[in-house]
Amino acid sequence: MYIPVILGTAREGRQSEKAARFMLQKALEAGLESEIIDVRDYRLPATDNSKKSPQAIQLAEKVERMDGLIIVSPEYNHGYPGELKMMLDMLFSEYAHKPVGICGVSSGAWGGVRMTEQLRLVCLAAHMVPTGEAVHFPRIQELFDDQGQLLGKSQHGQARRLLEELIWYARALKAEREPQID
Amino acid sequence: MYIPVILGTAREGRQSEKAARFMLQKALEAGLESEIIDVRDYRLPATDNSKKSPQAIQLAEKVERMDGLIIVSPEYNHGYPGELKMMLDMLFSEYAHKPVGICGVSSGAWGGVRMTEQLRLVCLAAHMVPTGEAVHFPRIQELFDDQGQLLGKSQHGQARRLLEELIWYARALKAEREPQID
Amino acid sequence: MYIPVILGTAREGRQSEKAARFMLQKALEAGLESEIIDVRDYRLPATDNSKKSPQAIQLAEKVERMDGLIIVSPEYNHGYPGELKMMLDMLFSEYAHKPVGICGVSSGAWGGVRMTEQLRLVCLAAHMVPTGEAVHFPRIQELFDDQGQLLGKSQHGQARRLLEELIWYARALKAEREPQID
Amino acid sequence: MYIPVILGTAREGRQSEKAARFMLQKALEAGLESEIIDVRDYRLPATDNSKKSPQAIQLAEKVERMDGLIIVSPEYNHGYPGELKMMLDMLFSEYAHKPVGICGVSSGAWGGVRMTEQLRLVCLAAHMVPTGEAVHFPRIQELFDDQGQLLGKSQHGQARRLLEELIWYARALKAEREPQID
Repeated sequence: MYIPVILGTAREGRQSEKAARFMLQKALEAGLESEIIDVRDYRLPATDNSKKSPQAIQLAEKVERMDGLIIVSPEYNHGYPGELKMMLDMLFSEYAHKPVGICGVSSGAWGGVRMTEQLRLVCLAAHMVPTGEAVHFPRIQELFDDQGQLLGKSQHGQARRLLEELIWYARALKAEREPQID
Repeated sequence: MYIPVILGTAREGRQSEKAARFMLQKALEAGLESEIIDVRDYRLPATDNSKKSPQAIQLAEKVERMDGLIIVSPEYNHGYPGELKMMLDMLFSEYAHKPVGICGVSSGAWGGVRMTEQLRLVCLAAHMVPTGEAVHFPRIQELFDDQGQLLGKSQHGQARRLLEELIWYARALKAEREPQID
Repeated sequence: MYIPVILGTAREGRQSEKAARFMLQKALEAGLESEIIDVRDYRLPATDNSKKSPQAIQLAEKVERMDGLIIVSPEYNHGYPGELKMMLDMLFSEYAHKPVGICGVSSGAWGGVRMTEQLRLVCLAAHMVPTGEAVHFPRIQELFDDQGQLLGKSQHGQARRLLEELIWYARALKAEREPQID
Repeated sequence: MYIPVILGTAREGRQSEKAARFMLQKALEAGLESEIIDVRDYRLPATDNSKKSPQAIQLAEKVERMDGLIIVSPEYNHGYPGELKMMLDMLFSEYAHKPVGICGVSSGAWGGVRMTEQLRLVCLAAHMVPTGEAVHFPRIQELFDDQGQLLGKSQHGQARRLLEELIWYARALKAEREPQID
């Protein structure tokens, strides 16, 4: 199954990249085909909503093929980054009936859980299935060592539970989207 | 499949009952087993969170058996009625991995869509699967005739799409929860 | 100035009472007139929306007199307790243009911040002014000693900042609601 | 008083511009100093969070000077446009304790009220004061004639009430921010 990881911020010095790499590693260890889809590679002028740009076409191919997705994103002002929203709004029907696991990142204590709530509503609007499980990375600047190894404890269990639920949904929904013929 | 309709307000003179009866009829016409679960019948003292009351036990039996659910609720102050929230909070794991279609009711123009958003987050917290489709009943006091027949046009199509998506999810998730043995 | 503290849960064994008592003490130390308004004392049958019950009348008198309010509430399923919502929905215009500081309580790590977000929207619907500052009580069961003394560190500073902002707003809005005549 | 109107979408063919011009006209008629601040003029690479770009500096000057603001924005996937969020996230303390009136635009029936809810939480995070009143422009493509004149009825009253509340807050908060000395 192909379940990529969207890295939802493009900011210089972004800390969320470490969390995205951690989730990618966990996805690969779970036997999934995965990769990081970086919002930096899918920037469009906001005036373009034709869905015909090379970036939109390339993204549509990935989203159509995916069996589910993971989004790793920081919280800015209790919401999601604008560049992530612009990328999600480029497509619509390609996302339908696919599960999404949302991982929140914050410099403060709350792990991005308020962003997670707002983003869940956006994903539901696109007819995705948000998992109940989530992974949160509070105080991200202290959470990884210089080699990018996670120092936190709870994220390992959270990631395992998120991936189990995500794969469970991906299998159930794929079987209904694409019934097998004997 | 058993997909009941929760009527989410207990207020005297509640208009949402008409919308709940409309959704019940649509569910029965779609071949579902259904009934109205009325929050009035599941009132608890708020001090009781033992989940051992007769009402909690009876509700748990219904929720465990259901393949999905429909909630019909008005919007009060942009949120959900307190009595609905108290009933939902009585249980937890029984709801997991079951689809829920939320129908909003309002006396004003916006059809309860703000309540729908808050309630979707509550349902996700209980690991339910909210449908992307929804039915909305704006200006409810003008929307039905004296015999309780819907005068509105758009709710028929909305109800059909909601039920299609709900049944699609119910089938997919049931197949994964309870795999058949040949 | 009269700024009471609403205790937003009625559950048996509620931990939020400790947080409400802490906020009451801080309000009194700041020179405010305050008291705890307990949702347990304002329970109504949900069928009653006449606003003519003795409880509704007593609450209306307090709300009309108040210059602002503090709400201390746990998070249940990412939302607010039903009994709190029922109490808030009993009144409307009495709340208008008064500032509200919301304090979140949780047994887990996130301090009730998701409840805070939903409750802010309810307060805005009633035309209240939610403060930007907030106090959060994560892992409430470990946060106070047997005498009810706070063991946490960060809540003292949070409470000071919340009260400063609340009093700032209360003064500004009172001056506009009730202009002085020389 | 200086209360400008932020136009929150940069998309080609944006319909929200008509709603923004309507709100600008209403603000001028109410005796306010106003202008449209167009997100198109404040696009930054998302990698830039230095707040030292010419656009950020120019925006900061306007936000510091403003006594309140109006935001007119469409709803995309139940949320706010990414380009609006990127512009709001460029600044922080300049917004504190200033009132904001949010106007929602939609091509469908619900007038952008779900976007309004998410954006209110973002504004509260920046310590702004969202008004309880709002103006909504549902089915925007049918709501103005070819000369940009509003055909809708309810928006006139909504705009009047929003401006009254916005000016009320602006006066109250300005008096507290900048006390007069006799």
